[in-house]
Amino acid sequence: MNGSPLLAELVDALRCLPGVGQKSAQRMAYQLLQRERGRGLKLASVMTEALQRIGHCSQCRTFSETPVCGICGNPGRDRHLLCVVESPVELAAIEQATGYRGCYFVLLGRLSPLDGMGPAELGLDRLTQRLAEGEVEELIIATNPTVEGEATAHYLAQLARAGGIRASRLAHGVPLGGELEFVDRGTLAHAFGGRQSAD
Amino acid sequence: MNGSPLLAELVDALRCLPGVGQKSAQRMAYQLLQRERGRGLKLASVMTEALQRIGHCSQCRTFSETPVCGICGNPGRDRHLLCVVESPVELAAIEQATGYRGCYFVLLGRLSPLDGMGPAELGLDRLTQRLAEGEVEELIIATNPTVEGEATAHYLAQLARAGGIRASRLAHGVPLGGELEFVDRGTLAHAFGGRQSAD
Ligand SMILES: [Zn+2]
Ligand SMILES: [Zn+2]
Repeated sequence: MNGSPLLAELVDALRCLPGVGQKSAQRMAYQLLQRERGRGLKLASVMTEALQRIGHCSQCRTFSETPVCGICGNPGRDRHLLCVVESPVELAAIEQATGYRGCYFVLLGRLSPLDGMGPAELGLDRLTQRLAEGEVEELIIATNPTVEGEATAHYLAQLARAGGIRASRLAHGVPLGGELEFVDRGTLAHAFGGRQSAD
Repeated sequence: MNGSPLLAELVDALRCLPGVGQKSAQRMAYQLLQRERGRGLKLASVMTEALQRIGHCSQCRTFSETPVCGICGNPGRDRHLLCVVESPVELAAIEQATGYRGCYFVLLGRLSPLDGMGPAELGLDRLTQRLAEGEVEELIIATNPTVEGEATAHYLAQLARAGGIRASRLAHGVPLGGELEFVDRGTLAHAFGGRQSAD
């Protein structure tokens, strides 16, 4: 269609990226060819290396090219606090938004029997073992506020209590800067019911 | 920040793609690692090959990995019609949207003295030569409707007339399916002034 089979192949391959349809893949390919050949070649080489070398941290299961990730291997992080998230995306969000200095455990999913995601797939045997070692004092459950995330949170809370460890959840409520009008009803009801003294 | 320097490097490298900021680069990197390693490796290899091998067609200047592109090399295309576009993006748009079966000439830019884009940079010597060869009967000027595109169109029209060749422009007007309310004033005024019999 544009006279270059290789260009058509590049446009097609770019569509494996999330949120990239035909139009933006085309725009990307043209821009790479027209203005960014050097940076594009660098991207291709970093991508190859990352996809071949990045595995999972043996302690927290987040993405890591070393057996133990930079967070788990950092002696400055508080090993008494363990925050459980569904994926490295949430880990990164918490790292960027908060001053949290504890450790993480990444489920790489959520409980979802229909998708074959049970406790074994989420590495909960390893988490149980970690809790049994006695170092963790508080399990901060930061699964997503979806039906499956809530079910997973419930399961994790039971696991913590069985091990005699304090479990906590992120607070729900109206987002900062969010207008009440646009907050979903469930969140609003929850925030209203859990209202705090304004003194 | 996420415990993997290589992952941070991948996120950073993805930002050379147009329209990709920090957040979407992160989402792309995670998705590639979590679900698309095979397709990601394929993308990296196609990208490397494309950026190394794709040059420009010696006849129309569009992207091509062969000396002459698939359109110029196609004996079924009408060599009496030559459509001039600013970039391969517009060439692809016209190929996809219309039944045009003529040939193209790609400027790879537009007249813009301040950016050092003059007739030489747009390959107009080659275009002049092509017009002098006598095969082209109509020069279809399809530059973008911007100030620089219009100036370029004007220059091209003079070039055609100097060579005794008919020059035409794409029709301006209200886009099909566009609501009048949302059409910009210049286009609306132009469409109104150029109104045609409704018989
Ligand atoms: Zn780790
Ligand atoms: Zn060509």
